[in-house]
Amino acid sequence: MSKPKVFEKPIGVKDYLPEAVAKLRRIEHAALACMQGWGYEQIITPTMEYYDTVGVASSTSDQKLFKLLNNRGTTLVLRSDMTAPIARVVSSLLKESPFPLRLSYHANVYRAIEEEAGREAEFFQTGVELVGDASADADAEVVALAIASLKAAGVKRFKIAIGHVGFLNGLFEESLSGRKEAQEQLKACLLGRDYVGYREQLRQLSLEEPVKRELEGILRLRGGQEVCKQALELSADETAQASIQHLCEMWDVLDAYGLSEHVLIDLTMIGDFSYYTGMTFEGYAADLGFPVVSGGRYDNLLAQFGRPAPATGFALKTTRILEVLGNEDEPAKAERVLIGYDETERKAALAIAQQLRSQGATVVTERIGQEEAAELSKNTSGRFIFKGVEYVEFLLFTEGMDEMLGGDGK
Amino acid sequence: MSKPKVFEKPIGVKDYLPEAVAKLRRIEHAALACMQGWGYEQIITPTMEYYDTVGVASSTSDQKLFKLLNNRGTTLVLRSDMTAPIARVVSSLLKESPFPLRLSYHANVYRAIEEEAGREAEFFQTGVELVGDASADADAEVVALAIASLKAAGVKRFKIAIGHVGFLNGLFEESLSGRKEAQEQLKACLLGRDYVGYREQLRQLSLEEPVKRELEGILRLRGGQEVCKQALELSADETAQASIQHLCEMWDVLDAYGLSEHVLIDLTMIGDFSYYTGMTFEGYAADLGFPVVSGGRYDNLLAQFGRPAPATGFALKTTRILEVLGNEDEPAKAERVLIGYDETERKAALAIAQQLRSQGATVVTERIGQEEAAELSKNTSGRFIFKGVEYVEFLLFTEGMDEMLGGDGK
Repeated sequence: MSKPKVFEKPIGVKDYLPEAVAKLRRIEHAALACMQGWGYEQIITPTMEYYDTVGVASSTSDQKLFKLLNNRGTTLVLRSDMTAPIARVVSSLLKESPFPLRLSYHANVYRAIEEEAGREAEFFQTGVELVGDASADADAEVVALAIASLKAAGVKRFKIAIGHVGFLNGLFEESLSGRKEAQEQLKACLLGRDYVGYREQLRQLSLEEPVKRELEGILRLRGGQEVCKQALELSADETAQASIQHLCEMWDVLDAYGLSEHVLIDLTMIGDFSYYTGMTFEGYAADLGFPVVSGGRYDNLLAQFGRPAPATGFALKTTRILEVLGNEDEPAKAERVLIGYDETERKAALAIAQQLRSQGATVVTERIGQEEAAELSKNTSGRFIFKGVEYVEFLLFTEGMDEMLGGDGK
Repeated sequence: MSKPKVFEKPIGVKDYLPEAVAKLRRIEHAALACMQGWGYEQIITPTMEYYDTVGVASSTSDQKLFKLLNNRGTTLVLRSDMTAPIARVVSSLLKESPFPLRLSYHANVYRAIEEEAGREAEFFQTGVELVGDASADADAEVVALAIASLKAAGVKRFKIAIGHVGFLNGLFEESLSGRKEAQEQLKACLLGRDYVGYREQLRQLSLEEPVKRELEGILRLRGGQEVCKQALELSADETAQASIQHLCEMWDVLDAYGLSEHVLIDLTMIGDFSYYTGMTFEGYAADLGFPVVSGGRYDNLLAQFGRPAPATGFALKTTRILEVLGNEDEPAKAERVLIGYDETERKAALAIAQQLRSQGATVVTERIGQEEAAELSKNTSGRFIFKGVEYVEFLLFTEGMDEMLGGDGK
């Protein structure tokens, strides 16, 4: 195995240069400010957690967890999401705090990846958890907040698809009772959004015609509020019925928020997190194949940390939102002032620099030679480049030269 | 080895609850905004780097690096500082950008620790690197910016001690030429600020009296600008003399900034980073034994990444600044509005919540029962607690009750 070249970084991780960081920071701040407006408060948890606690409780498959040993020989993981760490904090440091708890975060999370896939091993998420409220109002609140956060982050066109783990579970238990393998195969097709494969699987299963029709019928259960009514007719299973009732009520709440235009119900959706127990949702930005937000209800996770409680939440895929915004969301160009000086005029130059900074200006000071001073003084108006940096204005403090102003001539 | 309890987190890492996060974020934002005002732009690098590149180049001793294997079997490290990763970026992604480069960062860094020491395995740093400028002006700029950043972060009383790696190296080469072991022993005492031990070592070394006096004399080289003159008299070594000349010029620049009151020269100081080649500095907040900022010049590091260049910079110890500020810097209490509603009045309640949020208010909505509504309506003025959260005001939207306002009664 050859050594990496000195300038290389590990596969699947990224450097972000100033322009990208400015955008990423703007998304982060806008989303967190929005969450704060809804009463969610930020927490920070460590990058490393115990494998046996948070690692096992997270929904990330074992081979996708980054593992390392501490100096006691205990296995640690790099967090793969923030939901399990927050469940740990709610059950320990915050165990005396009454429910509901509204918590937000911005954090980098880690997934060991297949190198070929070109996916990221480290990425940013900005999200919330609402812990201790089992109601449809709580689920609708996190969906509404996800929508508000996306808008605040600058995402203009998007759709939120809402499903429910209980509907498919109930329907499959009813139709394919005891046939775990068949259930898993069908779910795998739905998870991969492979509807052709799903129909193919159905054909190959020995099922009575009405059951087949019922199971094929769920592929049509994507749309507006009318989908709830259709779903209630499709299955008499109690779990499935209760799930749909919950979605109906969520729809009413989202309608009250005035947000139902952004939402569609998709009962074929399977959240890819194993800890989801109720509604799940994903948000897709216009024309892009990957979700920019995902979330759902996880009523069993907190019990694993010793404080049983219902909970719901979501994570914005902050790094992906950066890609969605692309160049349409150019930040305003920095307005930098250059102060060039030589040794004799240093004191005056640095004093002016400090004064301008205290007034909010961005000021770069450079000790320069006579040639550079002469070169600079040719810039009589507008933006100019000096040593690779763009400036809107310059001030020269050099011997024999009276204080000289340039750039846009202010 | 017993399994960790479910609610435990690894030794040496921390959870930060909302109050601490609010302070930490304020320190971070104030420092970064200050750095931006001086023309420094943020970059973000990955948490994981190759051991053979950034790991080896970092100044952290091997046993303090967190190591892990990627799925190719290559050893990775969790970054132990940001200086080496930034050197990598300057030599790769930014290799076409002319010098000087002014870069800033806020990042968590990692050190595997001795469990007994109670030190942190993960902590935050906010800092800058100024790459491509070897002048005393550049060194003074980063010291001045460190001072400005500490002030912006809210640290009121602090002192910056400035030293120079070249002075001690020159002096020891002159006095203890070829006696590496003796040099290392004396440096170890100075690094630990063990002046008694230093004198003891000197006594045990077979040295001529004038040399002993010279080496003992450096313990007095701590103070204002006058220390430079004393140091010039103490050693005739060229390296030592050049180092002192550099510090003298830095002092002049810091004086031009009007900052010399915060600075003292301490020629006994040894930066604890092996890559430092020139001036080093540390900032101490009033009454606290640990530095809140440290920095220095590292002119050989960039060459290891293929783009030789002088460089200087510093890192604020953001997590420690949080401790320094303690409770003296209480953030303003959140002003939360509670909107309680039942199903019948939900639409009106959520509409008002959205309206208030769009005006900048922090609004929590809760679906409540009749008893809770009755309980709430007893709060006729001032702050009150509902389900563990403090509010300044409430609005009730429940059936049979006209819209009701409470709290401070606005």
